[in-house]
Amino acid sequence: MMKGNQAVRWRVLLVGATGTLGRAIAAELGARHEIIRAGRTSGDLRLDLSDAASIRDALAQVGEFDAVVSAAGHVEFAPLEDFQAAAIGESRHTLGLTSKLLGQVNLALAARDHLRDGGSITLTTGITLEQPIVGGSSASMVNGALEGFVRAAAIELPRGLRINAVSPNLLVEASPAIQALFPGFEPVPAARAALAFRRSVEGRQTGQVYRVF
Amino acid sequence: MMKGNQAVRWRVLLVGATGTLGRAIAAELGARHEIIRAGRTSGDLRLDLSDAASIRDALAQVGEFDAVVSAAGHVEFAPLEDFQAAAIGESRHTLGLTSKLLGQVNLALAARDHLRDGGSITLTTGITLEQPIVGGSSASMVNGALEGFVRAAAIELPRGLRINAVSPNLLVEASPAIQALFPGFEPVPAARAALAFRRSVEGRQTGQVYRVF
Ligand SMILES: NC(=O)c1ccc[n+]([C@@H]2O[C@H](COP(=O)([O-])OP(=O)(O)OC[C@H]3O[C@@H](n4cnc5c(N)ncnc54)[C@H](OP(=O)(O)O)[C@@H]3O)[C@@H](O)[C@H]2O)c1
Ligand SMILES: NC(=O)c1ccc[n+]([C@@H]2O[C@H](COP(=O)([O-])OP(=O)(O)OC[C@H]3O[C@@H](n4cnc5c(N)ncnc54)[C@H](OP(=O)(O)O)[C@@H]3O)[C@@H](O)[C@H]2O)c1
Repeated sequence: MMKGNQAVRWRVLLVGATGTLGRAIAAELGARHEIIRAGRTSGDLRLDLSDAASIRDALAQVGEFDAVVSAAGHVEFAPLEDFQAAAIGESRHTLGLTSKLLGQVNLALAARDHLRDGGSITLTTGITLEQPIVGGSSASMVNGALEGFVRAAAIELPRGLRINAVSPNLLVEASPAIQALFPGFEPVPAARAALAFRRSVEGRQTGQVYRVF
Repeated sequence: MMKGNQAVRWRVLLVGATGTLGRAIAAELGARHEIIRAGRTSGDLRLDLSDAASIRDALAQVGEFDAVVSAAGHVEFAPLEDFQAAAIGESRHTLGLTSKLLGQVNLALAARDHLRDGGSITLTTGITLEQPIVGGSSASMVNGALEGFVRAAAIELPRGLRINAVSPNLLVEASPAIQALFPGFEPVPAARAALAFRRSVEGRQTGQVYRVF
């Protein structure tokens, strides 16, 4: 936030700080703010987004912060024909529901108790909601759910807390396996996507989806 | 489908046929097609959308059909502050994920094996994706997921199978408890929403979300 005209250094919790996207966000926000790096197997703070108790326990250790940013969450890319009617946990198409969707939603819900007034929550979705790809039905489903949640949660968060999402296109830095799933998509540098995270964290808007494509 | 210029009577499986929305769809489509009515506790065919095995078992009894329409699925309306970080099944905000979202997705996945070539799948979402309401964060999340799934599944379904969603506004016929959640929304008659289901079933488009508001 601003004090007079001077930008103040914030405490930003960044989940997925060692990932392709997370590294670029850490570089962008780290220039101005204190970054607390979190991940399942890496970082200052260990938490597993797919385990609600581990999120709650980890956040209780951090103390207060001004922003939480998620650049994590797994979805399964696979042909639709491989997906069969099944309960949560029984089929690969439900994996994204527990990891990328509910993991990030739970992070947002748990963060409410630790964010300072006016603090910011930023989640990651992706281009597949608007531009479907072969093998992407689970990703499109999960990204749609996240955007719906962000838009709705924004009108109910207390104490001026804000929530936005960033929806990046395929990243230039993505693995060859991921690149192959997005033929003809024009990749964006992770540093460009990171700008949208800065816009969410340092801006004042809420309920927005910042599309980077 | 059309034979020459003459409309042919179809077999349409309608899940939720006894509900507020489902009754209007049964009236609209029943004028032209054979309707197989399905529900958890009502109808010709019993199935529980929240139980994948019960969907598979029920569909195996029906034989081939030309269209499946879902007008069912539960979401929990509750203030965001009542939602806590929790695993699927542990919190009310996850109820819609197993019922309205995964129930309808599983219905679509299971129906692939029983639909005739060119057959149609139509799911129900709702206005809260675009127009959030207080107490509607779970509904917005679930409706966003459904729209993402429909858009993506449409490009991968085999044998010319089609999939669309209908997103109705608040219905004129909704209960007073539901009406109270949507202050100032202009309700639409269920019969108007039912037209969009006809458009999905009898049209040729796929991957569409028909908004009735
Ligand atoms: N790459 C792209 O082109 C692209 C494009 C659009 C959107 N996205 C989205 O951006 C997000 C990050 O993608 P990415 O490519 O940067 O992934 P990535 O390179 O695999 O990095 C994932 C990061 O998240 C952490 N992580 C993984 N699982 C976790 C868990 N269960 N709990 C906590 N932390 C976890 C990882 O650290 P640990 O291994 O230590 O846990 C790592 O820091 C995903 O949601 C993805 O869908 C990516
Ligand atoms: N009402 C509105 O204003 C409105 C507006 C927009 C969207 N919608 C959406 O439209 C859909 C239907 O809403 P509605 O108001 O018509 O609901 P409703 O009046 O409560 O009817 C629900 C129907 O679905 C069946 N059903 C319920 N749970 C089921 C399950 N687990 N498995 C199979 N069938 C089940 C019910 O029959 P049994 O009890 O026999 O199972 C009943 O036929 C919902 O997805 C709702 O979100 C409603």
